[in-house]
Amino acid sequence: MAVGEGFQGDIYPVKGIRLAAVASHVRYANRLDLVLIELNKGATTAGVFTQNRFCAPPVKLAKEHLRLAPSKYFLINTGNANAGTGDLGRKAAEDCCAALAALTDSAIACVLPFSTGVIGEPLPIAKIIAGLPKAYAELSDQNWQLAARGIMTTDTRPKLVSERIDCAGEAVTITGFAKGAGMLKPNMATLLSYVFTDASIAKPLLQQLLSSAVNQSFNRLTVDGDTSTNDSCVLVATGCSGVEIAQTNSETIKQFTLALNRVFQTLAMEIIKDAEGASKFITIEVLQGSNSEECLRVAYAIAESPLVKTAIFASDPNWGRILAAIGRSGVEDLDIDQVSVFLGPVQIVANGSRFPGYTEEQGQAVMAETSITVRVELARGNVQETVWTSDLSLDYVRINADYRS
Amino acid sequence: MAVGEGFQGDIYPVKGIRLAAVASHVRYANRLDLVLIELNKGATTAGVFTQNRFCAPPVKLAKEHLRLAPSKYFLINTGNANAGTGDLGRKAAEDCCAALAALTDSAIACVLPFSTGVIGEPLPIAKIIAGLPKAYAELSDQNWQLAARGIMTTDTRPKLVSERIDCAGEAVTITGFAKGAGMLKPNMATLLSYVFTDASIAKPLLQQLLSSAVNQSFNRLTVDGDTSTNDSCVLVATGCSGVEIAQTNSETIKQFTLALNRVFQTLAMEIIKDAEGASKFITIEVLQGSNSEECLRVAYAIAESPLVKTAIFASDPNWGRILAAIGRSGVEDLDIDQVSVFLGPVQIVANGSRFPGYTEEQGQAVMAETSITVRVELARGNVQETVWTSDLSLDYVRINADYRS
Repeated sequence: MAVGEGFQGDIYPVKGIRLAAVASHVRYANRLDLVLIELNKGATTAGVFTQNRFCAPPVKLAKEHLRLAPSKYFLINTGNANAGTGDLGRKAAEDCCAALAALTDSAIACVLPFSTGVIGEPLPIAKIIAGLPKAYAELSDQNWQLAARGIMTTDTRPKLVSERIDCAGEAVTITGFAKGAGMLKPNMATLLSYVFTDASIAKPLLQQLLSSAVNQSFNRLTVDGDTSTNDSCVLVATGCSGVEIAQTNSETIKQFTLALNRVFQTLAMEIIKDAEGASKFITIEVLQGSNSEECLRVAYAIAESPLVKTAIFASDPNWGRILAAIGRSGVEDLDIDQVSVFLGPVQIVANGSRFPGYTEEQGQAVMAETSITVRVELARGNVQETVWTSDLSLDYVRINADYRS
Repeated sequence: MAVGEGFQGDIYPVKGIRLAAVASHVRYANRLDLVLIELNKGATTAGVFTQNRFCAPPVKLAKEHLRLAPSKYFLINTGNANAGTGDLGRKAAEDCCAALAALTDSAIACVLPFSTGVIGEPLPIAKIIAGLPKAYAELSDQNWQLAARGIMTTDTRPKLVSERIDCAGEAVTITGFAKGAGMLKPNMATLLSYVFTDASIAKPLLQQLLSSAVNQSFNRLTVDGDTSTNDSCVLVATGCSGVEIAQTNSETIKQFTLALNRVFQTLAMEIIKDAEGASKFITIEVLQGSNSEECLRVAYAIAESPLVKTAIFASDPNWGRILAAIGRSGVEDLDIDQVSVFLGPVQIVANGSRFPGYTEEQGQAVMAETSITVRVELARGNVQETVWTSDLSLDYVRINADYRS
């Protein structure tokens, strides 16, 4: 199950990047599960990673390598998260990086490892290492679709998004892909996401742009509140377009930042639309808060309420469950007699109780859509926040009761 | 679906209490939905109520009445929570209390109103008031089973628990019942719970005993993290046994407190065993914390993780999901390399990764049971906390996608 059609725009390869995806039989036979990405010399890389305390060994290693040397290869396996694996997991991630480094005559620190899949199982290193020569031989600047497909786990479709903008008369491309469908409440990054641009951007600025884009995209998603152990998101600037993005050129950086944020938000929404069992795409907007934190508390209380999510799955405008979620969200001095709630364009709650003109039919008409916006007005200030989520369906339970079998 | 058989012990009526349950057609035809409880003159009553900011009008009114006068009647309707109903809801609750007060020649403040059911619909006052004379006429000291059944909503069975203890040679009875199956993460009280004793206890002490008992029972439950708008729990001491419980008699109060806590914990567990869609009864024990708050953070992160709950529904010892939940629980300086996890008697995690001797078969054997204990040792201190929850099953989604239809 997934909502809508997925991103339909053109995909522009980013100059300087080559990709490959092969089947290395990490968990299943004949399934793409090993993706290799090669960066041109001179490319800069920024990354954000999970805040889960059970951060997986490959995540820790990727963070270290990113600090130590310019990245040259991203090595991504699915089917096994290499998480909860302790010292052996660390050694396994190091061995995979070392094998690729030897094959490509690179420094080990130039390889960033990424793993996604089941937690707690030993990583089958031999299978991954055996798959490397084929992946290396098949590197191509055209394999974007293949790579986006190769990092999928319970995703039902690839999430590949692209944009080409004009920066002071020069074309700049931004293309990225992501995966993630469950165990999804990113905190500084989402499960796995790779975004590339052919602009030239110094590493400190690149990191700033990435953190800012992630904060308004992946960091505003929740499927089940379960922050993954392996969330990683990287942004690469190859510089091959010859266009430089720098703080000193305010118009260019503005254009670029807008486009970059659009790409991240589109990827984030693609992830929610393909969330495990998703039949609805839900936007929670909280307005008129006195600060960002309280807006997010209210938004997440609604977005993660099993009762709200099952009601939306049933297309039931059961707004009492929304009120109950707002009421327990932890905003201590919230005056409920000031709260308004809208379902799409329809006002359902005014002053903390049913809006006088509201009819059940109006609510049902909104709920019949696959894309639903819940808007809450707190009447406390001028801050607003938006969070995206999916419904809680029978398929969500089926998928997660089946995942390891 | 429900776990196990429910409480099988004898039920002892509490002298001084009369009860009735009738069908008043609040929401469904021919279903017990109106319960009336009469307290003897001289009885003392203590109460705890929901902390949800969208606290329902009857809850607010019950709190006021409890403060203003000795309680004489509890008036409970199911099928409609009278929540999110604003001033009209307040008026509705007052009207019901006034009608009962007139019928029984009592002060309005002697009536405590309680409502449970759908949120946001106007309370059908006329139906409730029309049902009062029949309920009043049928009051009996034997109607305990009937009353326990009368307060049920999505519960599949009544939760009625009783204990008779010896207090310095005199018999003291404690009998109580409760309802609640979803929208259930009590915060100071659970959905609806009524516990009675024939001991004589002054109101301040009664309130202390109640708060303490609730804190180690109903306040440690979660089904879906959704704190209800209507949670209410009252404890009544009729004094009819002639036994006085007071701070000055340390042995008697100790015996009584132990029995009272057992009754509350048994009721709390009965609620979890009959939680919406429950096929498993899950105990989360977090040990070796440095304070209670961090133990509860970890326990609730596990207890409310949709991924942990679906895995347990599937009887899958997917311990990686438990680790991920611990890691995101928000204990900032948690050293995961010190964490141990046990599934029943089986150690599955040591030092933050898979316990060397653990086999999948051991985990599966524990998961095959209907009652499962997850124990986490944080190696940070000496504090421990316990939380009870249920699994996330297909039936949970079915029930909550159907609730209003």
